[in-house]
Formats: sequence, structure tokens, C-alpha cells
Amino acid sequence: MASTSASAGALLHHVRTGRARSRAELVALTGASRNTVSARVDELIAAGLLQEGGRGGSTGGRPPTLLQFNSGAGCVLAVDLGVTSADVAVTDLSAQILATVGHPIDIADGPDVVLAEVDRLAQKALAEAGLTPADVCAVGVGVPGPVEFSTGRPSHPPIMPGWHDHPIPSAFGRYGCPVFVDNDVNVMALGEMGVGGSAQDVLVVKVGTGIGCGVIVDGEVYRGAQGSAGDIGHIHVPTPDGRTVLCRCGNENCLEALAGGGALLRDALEAGLPVSSTRQVIELAAQGDGPALELVRRAGRMIGTVLAALVNFFNPHRIVMTGGVAQAGAPLLAGIREAVYGRSMPLAARALEITVSDAPDLSGRVGAALMAIQGYLDEDSVHQALAR
Amino acid sequence: MASTSASAGALLHHVRTGRARSRAELVALTGASRNTVSARVDELIAAGLLQEGGRGGSTGGRPPTLLQFNSGAGCVLAVDLGVTSADVAVTDLSAQILATVGHPIDIADGPDVVLAEVDRLAQKALAEAGLTPADVCAVGVGVPGPVEFSTGRPSHPPIMPGWHDHPIPSAFGRYGCPVFVDNDVNVMALGEMGVGGSAQDVLVVKVGTGIGCGVIVDGEVYRGAQGSAGDIGHIHVPTPDGRTVLCRCGNENCLEALAGGGALLRDALEAGLPVSSTRQVIELAAQGDGPALELVRRAGRMIGTVLAALVNFFNPHRIVMTGGVAQAGAPLLAGIREAVYGRSMPLAARALEITVSDAPDLSGRVGAALMAIQGYLDEDSVHQALAR
Repeated sequence: MASTSASAGALLHHVRTGRARSRAELVALTGASRNTVSARVDELIAAGLLQEGGRGGSTGGRPPTLLQFNSGAGCVLAVDLGVTSADVAVTDLSAQILATVGHPIDIADGPDVVLAEVDRLAQKALAEAGLTPADVCAVGVGVPGPVEFSTGRPSHPPIMPGWHDHPIPSAFGRYGCPVFVDNDVNVMALGEMGVGGSAQDVLVVKVGTGIGCGVIVDGEVYRGAQGSAGDIGHIHVPTPDGRTVLCRCGNENCLEALAGGGALLRDALEAGLPVSSTRQVIELAAQGDGPALELVRRAGRMIGTVLAALVNFFNPHRIVMTGGVAQAGAPLLAGIREAVYGRSMPLAARALEITVSDAPDLSGRVGAALMAIQGYLDEDSVHQALAR
Repeated sequence: MASTSASAGALLHHVRTGRARSRAELVALTGASRNTVSARVDELIAAGLLQEGGRGGSTGGRPPTLLQFNSGAGCVLAVDLGVTSADVAVTDLSAQILATVGHPIDIADGPDVVLAEVDRLAQKALAEAGLTPADVCAVGVGVPGPVEFSTGRPSHPPIMPGWHDHPIPSAFGRYGCPVFVDNDVNVMALGEMGVGGSAQDVLVVKVGTGIGCGVIVDGEVYRGAQGSAGDIGHIHVPTPDGRTVLCRCGNENCLEALAGGGALLRDALEAGLPVSSTRQVIELAAQGDGPALELVRRAGRMIGTVLAALVNFFNPHRIVMTGGVAQAGAPLLAGIREAVYGRSMPLAARALEITVSDAPDLSGRVGAALMAIQGYLDEDSVHQALAR
């Protein structure tokens, strides 16, 4: 059901995402009265979240006073936890990075060791930005495994031994602010959508060691019944040559076991290529090595087989590829496009964009920041802040 | 972003769907002030859409006056157009059928012939219900092909020759009310959700001559970028025996070409079964005929192969099977479950319900009625009605 909420949080959202720049535009957008909008805008200005700046173009009468979101009204901590690295950024309330520090970790060292390291990185990043823990309004954390979003606890994460059910938010108690935790693919998907967001339906497909997918419906993360939506790494894929590959999940011929980073390295070694890591296979392909290019393209075709089915079912506006293997770029995209355009229905494929992420290294941190900012600035939070 | 709209349309929606039964419950649900809620409820009572009836239980003070949606405040026309049949129902504003009439048609006779027949059926149904065209508040129409929802025009429908771009709403000009048109699978999905709806994520899979899927996200129809979401009939399926079947779309081994009603009849004839229609294959299976049972179960396995991938990706609360072939019931479900539970991730499959529709014949008409009622009673429409 359509809604025309004119709560303070909704008005702030419209200014923050660029949908409205003046009281008059807020009135037009929400259908609320001029008096209601003005009163709530005044509250938001008093709270430091909005500020007035300059005058817009006039269509006859007095030019309107422009409203701006005050992205300097606070900062958030954005944490991107990987299997072998932790990156922590301090951003303003528009997800602009003010400082960022990272360090190698081993996620298998467990939550106590890893979160102590994250805490150290956070303090360092805050100091670099010239800020203190009291300035932090919210924390966003992306982790490489399934998370119960409402509690911020990992749920049987296969590559995070020792983390099951650990209350990640409690590690950030010193900040006395809300903490939001989600799996890395959902977080990266938010990062790919950016600050302005958009009402589009988008798939953000991460191809690293594993393969996962962030599902965006109408600009927001779609989670499904148990929060496991987007778990495409274990979809069954037929192999052209009929070969059978066992997956770590116990099933055969899962997409991840055929086209993930580990599969690419395994197939490269079997083919006798002089490599010892997935990254080296990608680098060989980038240098134009024929066998490496064919391996990457074949992985793309297998990923494309699954995406072709999802394009028919989900009819997305666009698909963004990210993760280490996606950095192979052109040959991977060629394989994906070959399968998708060969097997999707024309109507769904016609306007579909398939691209590689512009900033795969950053989208985890930007997405974690956006998750924290959205949580902090949602209607209820703003309502509480104004009521103080 | 969460919203707590307390518009008249939103209040009506809460009472209509059983979420609130009194002014106090509306206040609690929306967070709006008691004065605001009372004023809007009074407007809705004056407009005849709400009525007061009886008193609820008290928790101490004066027992609250109960509010009821007045489903008799108007009626809608619900049209279920199939390839060979047209069914028209008149329902009240709770989608209760007051009268319904049907007649065989041939959709290939084109819009002029078919819509004239629909008009004749509509007048007959209205007369049976003791109503006149002036009582009709809205019209809902389901058609067996893709529709541009915003204009109600079919878009290159493969099995509706002559219907491309035809403005279906114009055929209902005599009623002077809004007309909503969508493809039959989306409409049936609404019908399966029922009047109360629910915030669940659901797949409604129709297996008839073709195979399609209505996608429900958080209780509402999900359409995708070009409105073609749910078009699962042309997803590629590997055949266990490596056989190749050409689909009418020009591709090979589409789900529909392997497991749709036409495929079932073709395979039954190849196997030498004494049948001349898909329905007879279903009937043979119902009588316990071994070869017919195996054909139905095999179709179920192929449908299940596709659904297993969609369960991993979409993580639905439930899947409802409908359409002619779904009436095979148990053997079809057995094949579907075998494939889905064998290939879906445990987390997504654990609480998943897979069932056959309770009322496949009715869900098209009930869904068309619900689409019309929702459109008529959405916030904007109620706002306009109250403003008159």
C-alpha cells in the first residue's frame, strides 16, 4: 500500500537522498501541509541534522531556502571483516570515508581475538580522523557468513569457526550506540547502491572463494523467510562434459565448486598452469594467457547459467559482479553474458546491465557505513533523538 | 524505511485485513493521536466504508466500540480469462462471491469478440446478484499472458494472438470506475494470499499448458524491472537421459517443454498410454496407473529442479502449486519435494511448506477481485472519495 509519511525521519530521508531540497519540495513529495513540514524541518535544524544554505531558483515568488543534510552531525564506524583481513573506516553521515585502517587477521582465531583487533583498528581510525568514541553514532559490521540480522549473531557460519551465535554488537559496547551486523554480500550490495539508493531491483554477485548474492528489491536488501536469500553458491549446475565435482557442502556440482575461486585454482593446477593462488590465475588471464583466459571464461559461463535462470525469475534492472574473481573483468563478463543472453527471455534481458563493480575493495566499508547510517537515521531513531 | 502512515486509506486497510478492530487498536498500531484517528474513522463511517458494531472486551475502562469494514459498500467485477474459458464473478468488497457465470471462449478470437462475451457475462452476473452497473466500484481482470500493469495492455502475449497492446480497460468504460489488469499467475497469487494477506514471501507456481510463477514479496506482487518476474517456464533444465526437446520459444529443454501440460500429454502418447488430453493423463495417475504416475512424478522432479534453485535464491516461506497439472496432487508433489529437499540448502528448506492450492478454480476470480478491491481502496482512492 502506498504511503506518504511525513515523519521527521521520512523528511530527513528525502533531503539526505537528494529527493527534495526545500520545504516546498517536501510538501509536494509527501502531501503534508506546509505548516507540518515547516515545524518538523525546524526540529531537524535544531537537532543539527539539517541546515539551511543559499537560495534555489525561483519560479516567480520568493526563491526557496535550500535545505542540506548536515553529514557532519556525527560519524559511524564501518567494519569490513573478511576471512584474512579486517578493514575499519570512520565515515561521516553521508558515508564519506574520513579515515580507514586495515590489518591481516585470521577469522578462525575466533571472535575474541578478531574483535579485539577490530577495536584497536577502530581507535586508530578515530584518532586519525581527529574524533573520539563519543562522536560515533552507530556501527555497521559486515562478516563472511550468515547472520541473524535482528540480533547481530552469526548463524552456523561455515568459514567462521567459533563465531556461531556470538553477540558481535557487545564488542562495541564502549560506543553506547546501535550496532548493525549483516553478511558481507548484503553489505556490499548496499555499498553498490550508494548513498542515494534507487528504487531498482538489483543482484550483486560476489565471486570470491565462495559465491553469494545480495538481493535488492526496490532499493532495499531482501532477506527471505530465514534470512538466507541470495545463497546461490550451492545451486546445482550441469557440467557440459558430464564431470562430477564434490562440494564442501556434501552435494555435487554446486556453482561454487565449479566456478568459485578455489575451483579456478584447482582447474588451473590440473591444466598445468604455473600458479599457486586464484589471484595468480586472474593475473595470468589479464596478461592474455590463453588457457587462463579460457578457464575464467568457462567459470563465467557456469555463473551465467545460474544467472540466466535468476534473470527470468527475478527480472532485475542490473547485475553487479564483485569479489576477487570478478576482478578478472572482461573474460568473466564475456562468459556470463554468453550464458545469460543465450538463455534468458528477451523481455527480461533486453535492458539488463551486467557490470563489474567500480570499487570492489570499498563497497564493503561503504555498505557497512550506509547500513549504520540508515539504522541510525530511520524514523524511530530520529523520533527518539528529537524527543530528547 | 519503516512508515506509520495514519491516512484514512491506511486505517481502513488495518480494519479490513483484521489488524485492528477499534479506534484504540488503530492508535496503538499507527502511533497517531487519538484525535486524528477518531476524526478519520468518522469520515470513513460517513462514507459508508466502516461501521460500528458491538463492544469488545474491556481491560478495565469502558469497553471499546468495535469497528467493522462494510464490505457491502459496493461491489467489484472479477474477470478470469483463460485460453478456452471466461469466468466473471461479482463480489463484495471482501472478495466474497455474490454471483458468478462462465462460458467457453477461444482467446484467439481476439479482444473484440472475447471482451464482448465478457461484457455479456458481467451483465448476467450483476443481474443474478441483483446489482446494476452503477454499483460496480472497480474491475479486476486476469489474462493468460504478460501485461503492462500501468496501462492494462497485453505485451506480446504468445498465446493471445491479436491482443498485443489492446487497451483492455476501455472495454469496461460503461462502469466509469478503475480497471486493473494483470497476468493470470500474478492474479492467482493474490487469490492464494487471501483477503487478510500476510507479510510472507511466497511463490505460487502454475503448471498448466505453460508454467509460470507469481512472486509475492512481503505480501505484495513483485514484478521486476520490465514486469516479467516469475517467468520460470523457459528456465533451462538438464534432462537425466540427455534428451533434447525443442520449446515453442525456440530454445531447447525449457522447463515448460519438459514438464508442462503439453509435455505430459506428448510423453504419455509416446509411452503408448490410452489418452487424448493432459487431463486424462492426470486422471489415469489418480486411478493409480503406474506409467502415468511415473510421468507425473518425473514432471514434478523437473519442476523441483528449478524450484530448488529458487528456494536457495529467494528463501520463500511457502510454495503453492496450482493449475491443471497441479491437480495431480500427491505424485507431482512427491517429485517436486524429492528434488527440492535433495538440492536446497537446509536452512532455506527447513521450514518451507510446499502445498497444492485448496481452490485452484477459484483463485483466479478471488485474486482478480482482490486486485480490484486493493486498487479501489488504496490510500489515494479513499482520499479522493472522502474529498468528494
